[in-house]
Amino acid sequence: MLVRKLADIRASDANVKSDGWESARMQLKKDGMGFSFHITTLYAGAELNLHYTNHLETVYVIEGTGTIEDLGTGETHKLEPGTMYALNNHDDHILRPETDIICACVFNPPVSGREVHDENGAYPADLDEEEATAS
Amino acid sequence: MLVRKLADIRASDANVKSDGWESARMQLKKDGMGFSFHITTLYAGAELNLHYTNHLETVYVIEGTGTIEDLGTGETHKLEPGTMYALNNHDDHILRPETDIICACVFNPPVSGREVHDENGAYPADLDEEEATAS
Repeated sequence: MLVRKLADIRASDANVKSDGWESARMQLKKDGMGFSFHITTLYAGAELNLHYTNHLETVYVIEGTGTIEDLGTGETHKLEPGTMYALNNHDDHILRPETDIICACVFNPPVSGREVHDENGAYPADLDEEEATAS
Repeated sequence: MLVRKLADIRASDANVKSDGWESARMQLKKDGMGFSFHITTLYAGAELNLHYTNHLETVYVIEGTGTIEDLGTGETHKLEPGTMYALNNHDDHILRPETDIICACVFNPPVSGREVHDENGAYPADLDEEEATAS
């Protein structure tokens, strides 16, 4: 059994900060659960165009409000505590937090912890496999 | 993209109630994400001996306090907002919520939505596969 506290993860190098968001990677690929689990903060006023072409992601809003625009359909959905969205089609999307949003995020395949979004808003495919191929 | 609201799931047949807990199955096997995602309430004063022999589960506490006893090691861990535990070894455990606890739960493989705990505190293996075998 693994037991971890958000405050400890936020104080560790498993807390990743970027432009408009930060993410506490509570559980990663190395934990062998088949998915990773992050507690992510989206900062008020950010506009985040994300497109996870290599991952499926489910997000559950714990605190805060904003919107998500589905660039495939043109629809905009309200985000508020109790909203879940699942990117089951690698959906290209824009997040617009109105307040700071705290959300739980699940990635399949699991993130290794070293990924940052590339210029297209994606995380790369499995870094371990890429490195294994390169070496 | 799938977008769902906790209040809608709680009012639907995807909300499962049992003795000492209830669970809103926000995302199930049929959604094709490779994991299921539930918002579960553990009621104050319950004592839940659970042992998922067929699943891995990660739990993140959003609200409330209590304890989890790891029956493999004898250790008891405090549960409070920001605590995550992962049953990476199909750990036999007892949950003792002191207040109502609301938590996000992720199951791999995904739950189909029809499972109830058996007499050993487990969910059965994949019901679709069992039914396919039986038919």
